[in-house]
Amino acid sequence: MMEQTMKHTLYQQAQQWILEAGRLIKEKMDEPLEIMTKSSPKDLVTKMDKAVETFFLTKIGETYPSHKVLGEEGIGKAVSETKGTVWIIDPIDGTMNFVHQKSNFAISIGIVHEGVAEIGFVYNVMEDTLYHAMRNEGAYKGKRKLPMLPEKTLDQSIIELNHFWLCPNRRVNEEKLQQLVYRAMGTRAYGSAALELAFLAEGITDAYLTFSLQPWDYAGGFVILREVGGKLTDAIGEPVDFLNRTTVVAANSSIHQELIDDYIELK
Amino acid sequence: MMEQTMKHTLYQQAQQWILEAGRLIKEKMDEPLEIMTKSSPKDLVTKMDKAVETFFLTKIGETYPSHKVLGEEGIGKAVSETKGTVWIIDPIDGTMNFVHQKSNFAISIGIVHEGVAEIGFVYNVMEDTLYHAMRNEGAYKGKRKLPMLPEKTLDQSIIELNHFWLCPNRRVNEEKLQQLVYRAMGTRAYGSAALELAFLAEGITDAYLTFSLQPWDYAGGFVILREVGGKLTDAIGEPVDFLNRTTVVAANSSIHQELIDDYIELK
Repeated sequence: MMEQTMKHTLYQQAQQWILEAGRLIKEKMDEPLEIMTKSSPKDLVTKMDKAVETFFLTKIGETYPSHKVLGEEGIGKAVSETKGTVWIIDPIDGTMNFVHQKSNFAISIGIVHEGVAEIGFVYNVMEDTLYHAMRNEGAYKGKRKLPMLPEKTLDQSIIELNHFWLCPNRRVNEEKLQQLVYRAMGTRAYGSAALELAFLAEGITDAYLTFSLQPWDYAGGFVILREVGGKLTDAIGEPVDFLNRTTVVAANSSIHQELIDDYIELK
Repeated sequence: MMEQTMKHTLYQQAQQWILEAGRLIKEKMDEPLEIMTKSSPKDLVTKMDKAVETFFLTKIGETYPSHKVLGEEGIGKAVSETKGTVWIIDPIDGTMNFVHQKSNFAISIGIVHEGVAEIGFVYNVMEDTLYHAMRNEGAYKGKRKLPMLPEKTLDQSIIELNHFWLCPNRRVNEEKLQQLVYRAMGTRAYGSAALELAFLAEGITDAYLTFSLQPWDYAGGFVILREVGGKLTDAIGEPVDFLNRTTVVAANSSIHQELIDDYIELK
């Protein structure tokens, strides 16, 4: 477990850097983006993603040389275990929104200490809204403490889901998820995993399902969601490890198990 | 065609009433909602929807007694033709978002004169963002004039689509739409037709497809979208009539026909 003073110091420090990185992004928003693709034509990365990750790497390296950094762009050293203190960073989560909409993207940071997720941030840069949480100390949207999530049934629930999972795919049975679409009150897709987790913690939606997610997409949101009583596991209900690509079922606790039992069938 | 001075007077007047209705909604936001359902358990209506529609009916009736009002809640007289001046009003578009999220809903108004859509408004109440347009006079987001939509190809496009249409349904071939999900750059679902049309006009997304929409859902957005060069037709490319439930393909003009030809097969 992380020592209290250290936790609070890190929290303040990380928050300051995130806001600074946000200003950096906003200042350079109108410069040409130099968009590149990674694993697929839909998997975008820009000069900005790399610049922001480098910003954090430099700051963390200077201030906390013993800490490790696991970042989306993989600029730092490889991280293969969560021993010590690990910063798990997505410099721009929702790169497609960043490129196409110039809004609806976030900086996501989770800080894991000896395997325990202690601190989480999701920063909606263009809205200037910071979701933040420390373990056992509640979650906040800006200065407002987020209330615990209320009891819900599935037919009162809004589910966040990429449309892709309703199409034939190699990871999950799309027909079961189609049944969920009929069953739930509604469905939404916003295009940034970190923001979708923040919205879930805020009660804007009640579940977020995805069948391929990286640690930097969920580490920040994980801590925020846990503080309001929400649950984030893989698609068979096991804990996520903050190191590897995984399936994710994040939900209001009252519907989490029902989602896994009745609507998710992995291939 | 509507006389210019009259058009400008109506535009100013409608704008003032919309902002007033928005204040009304915000003031009463935290009162109990008295949620009822209409055609299905997912088709919600609240006391607020009715109060806002009544607000407009009263204002319009007092000021323009010869005008007709076609509203979602059907409180006024039935409207069966677009002769004269017709206000087409959705007092709260995105009622599910209104109830569940307390954000991401809009007041939508289109004013049709002798069958021609002359004036359009979509007001994102909680963000206090007003999208507005007059025919041939450009579209605006607040004070900012929206630029004409740029050329796009489908693989550069983000498509707005309710998840429901990717599931077996009685209106459209879901398999074709699943192919579109693979083909497009991305997909989104925000839960308010009026806002989805405004986002499309803003270039946040590039198409909005739906296979059952009422005139009050699209009349405001129609005018705004047309002013930036976008196109809104039914799903076989025919003009919409502002009176009846219809399919809707709203899109950046450069992809509109391709969507209809290659991805939409009505049942």
